[in-house]
Amino acid sequence: MTKKAVVLLSGGLDSATTLVLAQAEGFSCYALSFDYGQRSKTELEAAERLAQHYKVEHKIMRIGLDGIGGSALTDESIDMPDQLEEGIPVTYVPARNTVFLSLALGRAEVLEADDIFIGVNAVDYSGYPDCRPEFIQAFEAMANLATKAGSDGRNIKIRTPLIDLTKGQIIELGLLLKLDYSKTVSCYAADTSGRACGTCDSCRLRAKGFTDAGVDDPTRYQ
Amino acid sequence: MTKKAVVLLSGGLDSATTLVLAQAEGFSCYALSFDYGQRSKTELEAAERLAQHYKVEHKIMRIGLDGIGGSALTDESIDMPDQLEEGIPVTYVPARNTVFLSLALGRAEVLEADDIFIGVNAVDYSGYPDCRPEFIQAFEAMANLATKAGSDGRNIKIRTPLIDLTKGQIIELGLLLKLDYSKTVSCYAADTSGRACGTCDSCRLRAKGFTDAGVDDPTRYQ
Repeated sequence: MTKKAVVLLSGGLDSATTLVLAQAEGFSCYALSFDYGQRSKTELEAAERLAQHYKVEHKIMRIGLDGIGGSALTDESIDMPDQLEEGIPVTYVPARNTVFLSLALGRAEVLEADDIFIGVNAVDYSGYPDCRPEFIQAFEAMANLATKAGSDGRNIKIRTPLIDLTKGQIIELGLLLKLDYSKTVSCYAADTSGRACGTCDSCRLRAKGFTDAGVDDPTRYQ
Repeated sequence: MTKKAVVLLSGGLDSATTLVLAQAEGFSCYALSFDYGQRSKTELEAAERLAQHYKVEHKIMRIGLDGIGGSALTDESIDMPDQLEEGIPVTYVPARNTVFLSLALGRAEVLEADDIFIGVNAVDYSGYPDCRPEFIQAFEAMANLATKAGSDGRNIKIRTPLIDLTKGQIIELGLLLKLDYSKTVSCYAADTSGRACGTCDSCRLRAKGFTDAGVDDPTRYQ
């Protein structure tokens, strides 16, 4: 029987690469996205297109993270930064990966899937505490105590195939697996037709990745 | 300065007792409830009344747990059990406490609160894996790696004042603190005016608690 995996799919470059990697490993994938009040919905539309293209079941769960506040990604009173910052960026959403992994854990339990894939990366985004390997390990330990799966002697695994890769290496890996990166959207401020601003943190990091990988950048800019 | 705490408030007996305990400890409390597609909304209305009565800020976050499925509390295709069951009950919502604590963690981070109160109980409800002390400890360890708080050297604490108490002991404690239990709703199938069915798991456990505490049961039954 094909093993099932839940794959967190934002529609960005990293999560799309994670999805093709999970499929390449032979998993039957169930994609999960979140509508958490982010300003830009074009990422979610990209996630839908990717899920259709790769023929995986896709759920978009709506959660009221905007009620928590505290991030430039969801709170319109905080200005979007246009330069890479020192330390933890203001685009950090409080407890975001914890919340996303928790909901993925619930979905995994219902599907009886043991594997949850998340495209976190500790190299280029070391400012986010919830992208660190020690966080992922602690979440996995907690997850195995939290659920029926843990009680049944099954073993939940949080898989982070990109965690030690640079953006350039991620892109090289995706291209080997024929991923069409023009289908992905990374920009924090993309317009309604999915064209990127080219100036936000996420755009700069992505553009640098294509340069480092030595390939043409297929991103559509405004 | 008064210390802030996030208190998970379902509107049931346990979470109401937890709120009055947190206030009695001197915390400035921020109540958080979830609308996760549960069949009965009367619990949420009870949570609102309790928050108003105790003059605490109250947020209700909407999350699409019904999209995950797998529980009689949210999925209408699963029959509600009317007897206490062996093992893990079908009223278990997948990863529920993990999801609720994760969202409370995000709220705590924005508020710069170090304390999160949850009314879990390992005595009467040992069938739920996410009510066990070892789960709470693992969540706390993860939480301190997940957030800015952890990085800043602050210390997130998951407080479970009811974890080792019987339902009777919980009620005795709440009555000492003048909690009016008629304001709380525990029933899985309460009617629109908040009257309890008297036959579901939660009703039976609650009724037994009042008997054990040797006090009159103020619950309004259908």
